[in-house]
Amino acid sequence: MLNNLNPLVSLCKRRGYIFPGSEIYGGLGACWDYGPLGAQFKINVKEHWWKAMTHRQDVVGLDSAILMHTNVWKASGHVDGFSDPLVDCKDCRFRFCLDKEKETKKDPGSCPQCGSKNLTKPRDFNLMFKTHAGSVEEEASLVYLRPETAQGIYVNFLNVQSSMRKKIPFGVAQIGKAFRNEITLGNFIFRCREFEQMEMQYFIHPKQADQHFEYWLQERKKFLTDLGLPEKSLRIHEHDKEELAHYARKAVDLEFLFPMGWKELEGIHHRGDFDLKQHQKLSGKKLSYFDVEKQDTYVPWVIETSIGLDRLILSLLCSAYKEEKVKNEQRIFLALHPQLAPIQVAVLPLSKKDQLNTLANKISTFLRKKWRIEQDETGSIGKRYRRQDEIGTPFCVTIDFDSLEDKKVTVRHRDTMKQERLDIELLERYFTDQYIN
Amino acid sequence: MLNNLNPLVSLCKRRGYIFPGSEIYGGLGACWDYGPLGAQFKINVKEHWWKAMTHRQDVVGLDSAILMHTNVWKASGHVDGFSDPLVDCKDCRFRFCLDKEKETKKDPGSCPQCGSKNLTKPRDFNLMFKTHAGSVEEEASLVYLRPETAQGIYVNFLNVQSSMRKKIPFGVAQIGKAFRNEITLGNFIFRCREFEQMEMQYFIHPKQADQHFEYWLQERKKFLTDLGLPEKSLRIHEHDKEELAHYARKAVDLEFLFPMGWKELEGIHHRGDFDLKQHQKLSGKKLSYFDVEKQDTYVPWVIETSIGLDRLILSLLCSAYKEEKVKNEQRIFLALHPQLAPIQVAVLPLSKKDQLNTLANKISTFLRKKWRIEQDETGSIGKRYRRQDEIGTPFCVTIDFDSLEDKKVTVRHRDTMKQERLDIELLERYFTDQYIN
Repeated sequence: MLNNLNPLVSLCKRRGYIFPGSEIYGGLGACWDYGPLGAQFKINVKEHWWKAMTHRQDVVGLDSAILMHTNVWKASGHVDGFSDPLVDCKDCRFRFCLDKEKETKKDPGSCPQCGSKNLTKPRDFNLMFKTHAGSVEEEASLVYLRPETAQGIYVNFLNVQSSMRKKIPFGVAQIGKAFRNEITLGNFIFRCREFEQMEMQYFIHPKQADQHFEYWLQERKKFLTDLGLPEKSLRIHEHDKEELAHYARKAVDLEFLFPMGWKELEGIHHRGDFDLKQHQKLSGKKLSYFDVEKQDTYVPWVIETSIGLDRLILSLLCSAYKEEKVKNEQRIFLALHPQLAPIQVAVLPLSKKDQLNTLANKISTFLRKKWRIEQDETGSIGKRYRRQDEIGTPFCVTIDFDSLEDKKVTVRHRDTMKQERLDIELLERYFTDQYIN
Repeated sequence: MLNNLNPLVSLCKRRGYIFPGSEIYGGLGACWDYGPLGAQFKINVKEHWWKAMTHRQDVVGLDSAILMHTNVWKASGHVDGFSDPLVDCKDCRFRFCLDKEKETKKDPGSCPQCGSKNLTKPRDFNLMFKTHAGSVEEEASLVYLRPETAQGIYVNFLNVQSSMRKKIPFGVAQIGKAFRNEITLGNFIFRCREFEQMEMQYFIHPKQADQHFEYWLQERKKFLTDLGLPEKSLRIHEHDKEELAHYARKAVDLEFLFPMGWKELEGIHHRGDFDLKQHQKLSGKKLSYFDVEKQDTYVPWVIETSIGLDRLILSLLCSAYKEEKVKNEQRIFLALHPQLAPIQVAVLPLSKKDQLNTLANKISTFLRKKWRIEQDETGSIGKRYRRQDEIGTPFCVTIDFDSLEDKKVTVRHRDTMKQERLDIELLERYFTDQYIN
């Protein structure tokens, strides 16, 4: 329903989902802070991914450091090859990145700001953030902020396999921050310099690559639709040979239809033995697997699934965002999955009178043992419903003066606005039935 | 029971809790990677903190970016004051940090490596990691990796308060990475250059500082003992005037008795209005609160609780670590809280025979709906118990050939090694009773 991101950006700020980073200082390009509701929403999405990935017999988790040895990025190809072609306009001084898909390095096109063709030759600009560890700023102390989490998994392949006694096939999953010094930014949280990845590397026997690739592609698609993304907003795009990254033998993007068009949401990559072999070469450590039963030693191949958490959040918010006319007034609501919604039940005493508040406190405390609850006493009930609709709370429990007598409350449903009167005693049972695990 | 950290460091590597970072490349000073069990353990601890902090009416969460505007760190005092006195030995070239507590800047003492008194004058070394955002490495593009998460909360004070309609007193809690370019490192994960903080800033009326400070001190102590830290390993240390940081009016450390002595685990700080006033001054934005009922406008004061996640992990592992003699053999086990243990139930079929494996799979799948399960078929049952003891799994379920007939399994308790025979059908009920929430 969204034609552009503006109404969502506005809702996110107004309602505590996402704020511009360092806003009181004028902001910091493409850095965003997750507010109270965004932080909780992100935790919920991460938890779903983590459980789907690691609460199974053949995949374990990992949490490797952001700061890694420089050789990691030499081996992976990032030091030499992770760059964008940068061009300056000699007339208006505008600096921009060539669109790699459209333009070759020989013909930089024209300046997107003033249209001039008077441009510098493109030069490679490495996208990794550099810093220095220790007290001397010299080559030896140079470290990069990791541009992806995957390499943390490869360099720990042996430690994980042996300490966890894992047999191939097995996977290692990780959630964590990554950093890319992007020049072309924008589209809200779609492309940020600081972002969070959820990646899983599945180590396999070379002969079984196709079957595992297909399995994970289907798993990941199912995961996305289970979270609430509609089938019709997802499509598969397979990279042709020109598009393939240097490490990939095959790559399929799961694309989502954002307001700005179809864009990559998750990638499933067949990386072969590229990464382990590279690390083997540069570190001098043998990174192979010994199959006891078959008495066979080999460097495993890898199927990777890689999703940007922030763009997953964006896709979920985009597809949850609804506008409708109700009695000639516009109603906005977020139809979030009830398990992902930051607030699951709002408890709303109709007036600020002490008796109603006491009962509301009791109900909140009780429900909070199982669900995420917000109690809100301030403002008209209409305004409070509007707020809960906009933050995507699936249920409101309204307590009125009758509640003191009949021990019943009104439960209002976010998507239908249907209201029903329920015994307070039955609330727990009712919500348990609604949130089937 | 631990006199030094070595046995724990060894267990952590051997069993998949914590690996040296970038190990195949010779490591990267004081960077550590959390292995599969460490990653899960850390998630569990974070979840407990997050729920204790934010699943209450008066505290909300936040997840602000690591990269923030440089002015944030000017306002906070980090650009000018967050430094250690650094000294070079002119004889052996060793570079070290003065111990600020013991030595004054005028008398640097002697070189810890060669003992020479031939030292340079101490000079200030700022502990913030620097990097550059954008394509030009100039002053304007300088950004720091945040050295603490607290400032992300202060700069979002207005956004959080207004979007969440919060009334004072209220708190904002955040978990996230922070970075300090420490020169003196060591003691395993106690002091790392990259670490994770769990901080909460509670905004209050100035007149109520003492009462809130005392409340949070008690809350935090209770939280730590609830997680399993023994009372006798915790003590309170109040900073005297010389120790107080520039922002603090009062500070109390909760210290834990690590193998290397009493060290700060968590700090409770009365920061007054220092931070909000500083940001107000530098940003020109008014960061005050309007109390509608009392028609009173003021800059709130702040009580902060601040704990390093990694050192909390270390303290939990240290106090869980147990060695005992059993039939003349050494038994090592981690007596972790059952809700925090990375694996809660291990399912162990006695032999690799298909029938036992089928039953084991069935039980694992069933129990995995509620708990974190590891199924392990390889090696002698003795070795497998030893592994589960060392990783802190509270219960093992052993499936033998009798299980096929009598539909019973053996449940073994980690701490007592007591074994009991239980109906498979009763397992879920049994473990539910053991993990009372």
